[in-house]
Amino acid sequence: MIATQYEGNKTFSVVEKEIEAPAQGEVRIKVAYSGVCGTDVHIYHGMMDQRVAMPQTIGHEMSGVIDAVGPGVEGFAEGDKVVVRPLDDRKAKPSDKGFNHICEELNFIGIDSPGSMQQYWNVPAFTLHKLKEHTDLKLAALIEPLSVATHDVRLSGLQANETAVVLGGGPIGLLVAMVAKEVGAQVIISEVNQTRIDKAKSMGLEAVNPMEVDLVEYVKSKTEGRLADVVFEVAGVQPALDIMTEVAGIRGRIVMVAIHGQPKPVNLFKFFWKELKLIGARVYEKEDYEKSISLITANELPFEDMITDVQPLSNIQKVFENIDNNPDGMKVLMDCQL
Amino acid sequence: MIATQYEGNKTFSVVEKEIEAPAQGEVRIKVAYSGVCGTDVHIYHGMMDQRVAMPQTIGHEMSGVIDAVGPGVEGFAEGDKVVVRPLDDRKAKPSDKGFNHICEELNFIGIDSPGSMQQYWNVPAFTLHKLKEHTDLKLAALIEPLSVATHDVRLSGLQANETAVVLGGGPIGLLVAMVAKEVGAQVIISEVNQTRIDKAKSMGLEAVNPMEVDLVEYVKSKTEGRLADVVFEVAGVQPALDIMTEVAGIRGRIVMVAIHGQPKPVNLFKFFWKELKLIGARVYEKEDYEKSISLITANELPFEDMITDVQPLSNIQKVFENIDNNPDGMKVLMDCQL
Repeated sequence: MIATQYEGNKTFSVVEKEIEAPAQGEVRIKVAYSGVCGTDVHIYHGMMDQRVAMPQTIGHEMSGVIDAVGPGVEGFAEGDKVVVRPLDDRKAKPSDKGFNHICEELNFIGIDSPGSMQQYWNVPAFTLHKLKEHTDLKLAALIEPLSVATHDVRLSGLQANETAVVLGGGPIGLLVAMVAKEVGAQVIISEVNQTRIDKAKSMGLEAVNPMEVDLVEYVKSKTEGRLADVVFEVAGVQPALDIMTEVAGIRGRIVMVAIHGQPKPVNLFKFFWKELKLIGARVYEKEDYEKSISLITANELPFEDMITDVQPLSNIQKVFENIDNNPDGMKVLMDCQL
Repeated sequence: MIATQYEGNKTFSVVEKEIEAPAQGEVRIKVAYSGVCGTDVHIYHGMMDQRVAMPQTIGHEMSGVIDAVGPGVEGFAEGDKVVVRPLDDRKAKPSDKGFNHICEELNFIGIDSPGSMQQYWNVPAFTLHKLKEHTDLKLAALIEPLSVATHDVRLSGLQANETAVVLGGGPIGLLVAMVAKEVGAQVIISEVNQTRIDKAKSMGLEAVNPMEVDLVEYVKSKTEGRLADVVFEVAGVQPALDIMTEVAGIRGRIVMVAIHGQPKPVNLFKFFWKELKLIGARVYEKEDYEKSISLITANELPFEDMITDVQPLSNIQKVFENIDNNPDGMKVLMDCQL
């Protein structure tokens, strides 16, 4: 089979490997599609070389079909369409208080151990979620990033009669906006890139440019002065941190989705004054995957619009090089059987 | 009657005034004690001159006895012991979403309108909470600051089997620690001032100096590695902001009690990584007052130790001058009938 490997120094190799039998408790998946995540791009840029054991097959947004079932695995059979929830929490400790999806010694499959950017992939069966037979495997490769969004929205406690502002209209921002809208809430995306604004609008989402519109006044006008009940910070830049505490109304909840590598100035006075809440959100839990699977299965949201390119696995080097030059792209999928 | 007035420029006057009849919906209170709050010291320092209409009688931590009942007031009678919840929320709007205690146009009585540092005080009856006849009026003057603590602890969701770390062992820090301990939680105060550490210990509270002890390791050792379930940031200094995200365990809740006038660096990565929550908390709601009243009435916590000085109203200038020179003091009460 073909496998890709991150070799460091912005380089991927494509190698021929033996297909291995699944070990005890594992299944072998014939990978259908594997999406490129922002984290994968981060790895490609060498930002995670301390953590990633090179050469490493990366990738964790995927869909596929069970190809072989290892000893001791129950409830799964060859031919089942599946996705992997790439969290190996077998080293969870009591001090993780049951929040095993973010346990201290979490093994994130596809970063800390081999991932899905290969033709066949052996994974522990406890990471699997089964799909309906009619599920589109291209869309199913969105289940992992969509679960980030369903997790974020669930932790926000967003209600149908509320207004959410999404700061940042990239792939996760759009997914968060779609899920928030599906809850029934009014959703306003704030994004500075015109192509992304157009993309959001073409998907039926509302998007405004905070460089052109006074976002706080705009949201105020759309909420009879209440401002945002929930703010999702998905942009990861200081202007988003500056405005998140302004655009949130009394007792507003701000979900911190973006990864800020360094401590950044935050207006804590506004947290005090308006009794705001900041909610850190990372990856997803089982129920978030189940929610995402039901959304993808129903296919009533514009998920197809999220997929802006599908490329054969053998093109991996070019795909990562192009992502840097194409900020307008949304989700690129690797077709792992080509 | 005697009334005190903040005149600006670090100056209080003591003036003779007419006792006025209570207006429609108001009662007149013969004020027993009025505590000095950090906010009052802030006003004395001229930090709130933009907000305080001088000359102004300040003061909002008080106890007293109803002296006269105005027209239209029901449920209160002359001789009733009462405290005032100094929040006039009559200008609350729908956009305040029912969180009237922090409504946009809140009138904080004692800052935005005349307060309790006078012998007689007319207030709207809706601000009153009635006390039991046997309630100690000195202790009752602690109900307002204690309600900040009961509000903070309630919003934190602290449970009996959890551990709370209180950053800062001043008056509010000690009250928060007492209330948290009363919930049944393990409580550790972090404080750099040795006199305050000794004070906390003398009140049966645990307190450590983070300049001498590695606070994170210490809390780890006291929680089997779980770290703090709840952190109360009551110190208002950058080292507290730096350590709050370290000392909080997975899904820890950090309550922002301190007032940070300027945006400050916060480790947002830790919010993401451990799914921490930051909870802004300001003043109190009706139920927090009721909780505080029941604690003061029961008098089973070391509230008396909080009161480090009682001074006649006529000494107000000296009291405020001394507070600056005596960081070891806790709560100073003005005896409003002397």
